[in-house]
Amino acid sequence: MQVYAKMNAQQLLAAYAKEKAYFEECKEKGLDLNMARGKPAKAQLDAVSGILTVLSEPEDCVADNTDVRNYGELAGMPSARAFWADILGCKPEQTVLGGTSSLNLAFDVISRAYSHGLLHSPRPWCKEEKVKFLCPAPGYDRHFRITEFFGAELITVPMTPEGPDMDLVEEYIKDPAVKGIWVVPKYSNPTGIIFSNETVRRFAALKPAAPDFAIMWDNAYCVHEFIGDYVEFPDIIGLCAQYGNPDMVYEFASTSKITFAGAGVSVLACSEANVDYFLRLFSVQMISYDKVNQLRHVRFLKDRKHTLELMKVHAAIMAPKFQVVAEILEEQLKPCGFASWGNPTGGYFVSLDTMPGTAKRALALCKEAGVVMTPAGATYPYGIDPNDSNIRIAPSLPPVEELQKAMDVFCTCLKLAALEKLLGK
Amino acid sequence: MQVYAKMNAQQLLAAYAKEKAYFEECKEKGLDLNMARGKPAKAQLDAVSGILTVLSEPEDCVADNTDVRNYGELAGMPSARAFWADILGCKPEQTVLGGTSSLNLAFDVISRAYSHGLLHSPRPWCKEEKVKFLCPAPGYDRHFRITEFFGAELITVPMTPEGPDMDLVEEYIKDPAVKGIWVVPKYSNPTGIIFSNETVRRFAALKPAAPDFAIMWDNAYCVHEFIGDYVEFPDIIGLCAQYGNPDMVYEFASTSKITFAGAGVSVLACSEANVDYFLRLFSVQMISYDKVNQLRHVRFLKDRKHTLELMKVHAAIMAPKFQVVAEILEEQLKPCGFASWGNPTGGYFVSLDTMPGTAKRALALCKEAGVVMTPAGATYPYGIDPNDSNIRIAPSLPPVEELQKAMDVFCTCLKLAALEKLLGK
Repeated sequence: MQVYAKMNAQQLLAAYAKEKAYFEECKEKGLDLNMARGKPAKAQLDAVSGILTVLSEPEDCVADNTDVRNYGELAGMPSARAFWADILGCKPEQTVLGGTSSLNLAFDVISRAYSHGLLHSPRPWCKEEKVKFLCPAPGYDRHFRITEFFGAELITVPMTPEGPDMDLVEEYIKDPAVKGIWVVPKYSNPTGIIFSNETVRRFAALKPAAPDFAIMWDNAYCVHEFIGDYVEFPDIIGLCAQYGNPDMVYEFASTSKITFAGAGVSVLACSEANVDYFLRLFSVQMISYDKVNQLRHVRFLKDRKHTLELMKVHAAIMAPKFQVVAEILEEQLKPCGFASWGNPTGGYFVSLDTMPGTAKRALALCKEAGVVMTPAGATYPYGIDPNDSNIRIAPSLPPVEELQKAMDVFCTCLKLAALEKLLGK
Repeated sequence: MQVYAKMNAQQLLAAYAKEKAYFEECKEKGLDLNMARGKPAKAQLDAVSGILTVLSEPEDCVADNTDVRNYGELAGMPSARAFWADILGCKPEQTVLGGTSSLNLAFDVISRAYSHGLLHSPRPWCKEEKVKFLCPAPGYDRHFRITEFFGAELITVPMTPEGPDMDLVEEYIKDPAVKGIWVVPKYSNPTGIIFSNETVRRFAALKPAAPDFAIMWDNAYCVHEFIGDYVEFPDIIGLCAQYGNPDMVYEFASTSKITFAGAGVSVLACSEANVDYFLRLFSVQMISYDKVNQLRHVRFLKDRKHTLELMKVHAAIMAPKFQVVAEILEEQLKPCGFASWGNPTGGYFVSLDTMPGTAKRALALCKEAGVVMTPAGATYPYGIDPNDSNIRIAPSLPPVEELQKAMDVFCTCLKLAALEKLLGK
């Protein structure tokens, strides 16, 4: 095997014939494998199922002088707010607990910005002539879609190994129509990088033209290392305050990948002024979020220290899968020289850049062979990757054995698509 | 004791002195009683706490070929959709399960109408010059507040013993700016009446000028009788379809007063076309609602028949409280002749009309004496009762003994406020 770029036509044709034959072989196996979404594996869910019975009797349901089985406490149980403050390094008064989904909390923040405006908005965003939103890409499709849904113009900002290109961010925010930015600061989705301290500092120090500029700081993977020790992260809320921007950041997190996916507890962390503002808005839609589930989580997870112990159980299940991905990519793609990828130590994804102009085709081939991936382009605003190159690999769900098969098919499809392109097929 | 209206000045002064003395006596007791909100009592919560352990082991968490501990099934678990269809008399395909709160689902429907429009909207409501919303009153403050929040003009429609004044409703909907109506068809909040079949038929047959007119049909108390047998109710979705208005109605319900308040499962029921439309919208904000809790509810409540059995347990706790309210009102207020009230057989409230112009004052006196009630005016749009007369009594939370004390204080305060008015104090 050698680098495709150095092959002559005959060599390319031979490589193509070989990959094509193997592809047909794979197809005949009738596989049904999925690496599309960051879903925890069954083993992970089993490992945390103790949470099901942590509240068993009526008397278990009283905490903070509150019966969690009844209405009340819109901001969340005090002990649950304290739990999240411990995890995020902020103050309990800077947290508002939500339902099962931090995505829904982020949606609600943007939705309320649209209909009513944020704390410092001169007017609701729906009354603005134009709203633009910065989208570091590759990034998380569901983030981009929320701002697209509310009619914002999405502006792509390239990602670097240290985070979004901050020179560009600092330039874009001079435009008062630029109202915010989506980021995943730790184990970024999908690149897996951690924002450098300097990137985080530059975020906190931003002086946007829009008085209601919103940093949507999705700390979805804040305790989600799968290799190595826990990596500390700065308290962005305190840091923004330090730079005179206390109300600029909205931090999100959830237990979706700590306990149960889609049945955990989410949090919005922000300045006390923002907490007041949002509680006023949220009081129109809610009496109180699910405190039974909040208390289940507090009893089960206890605190940051205990949660980090539990994350090691997840890590032990996740690490071998990411190792398989790394090994197979190294073995099958490295020699061909047309693709590059990250080697994350936490989070849920591996981001891969294949030969420009071939990502869509490669994933269509994957589908043909029974392997479902996140659609190509999903990691870019509007679902359009201008280079048709980036692919998000989500190896968490399948068991290792299935993952090996899926990665094998995946690499074959990448090679086939690249060879097709080189051969002008 | 005699009817106040027939008393002379001297008699009124004597009555005032007596009530005033008793009021001061009450105040000295330093009571702390609450009849403000329709919260279930501890005994009710204890009676359903079996739901806490209905899912105990990992293997309990698989149903409908789905592991409820992982992401997926935005519309809800098939078995949970079937459960709600059984309760509401509609089809499973006509249901979308939400989080813990049907109020939040109703909010989301109006919020999306505002930002994106409903299925048949010519444009989003935020782009309309004017949106008006019909609010049968006395009604539910949190309903009114949602439409007020989104800038709609609230139009009061009087309630009758058969439901909202349908002659007026049929007149108002000729205005294309009138975009919808809030209703609680069974055990209406707060009057406790059940809409007559003719009222329900007239709702289904409405031909509003607005193509996107929305009947917000909050069936919050659909299985919530506390006296007597279960009262059947018509399937409003099927009925609307029968009258050629399949997409006009959005029905809401939840288990907030069946299992745990604020930790139950909610549902939006509507036409299949509306289900499709809303799933498309909801997919931007959610991956899936809490299926673990959905399955808990399906396993615990089973079906309509079993749920109705369970509601008898609630009824046995609720009935004596409503009896206390009825008895004390009868004994203390009837002879004075200045107030009238309902005698509901289900729901969570008793609606009372006191002497016009005295409700606010009476509840201020209650507060002084340590009894918290729903604020006067809350049952009317903008929180303003033009007659300052209607008061919502919520007797479910306090134990019977406390309730007796609270009702005693309440009646004294009503009398005192009425006497003050009659005496020009």
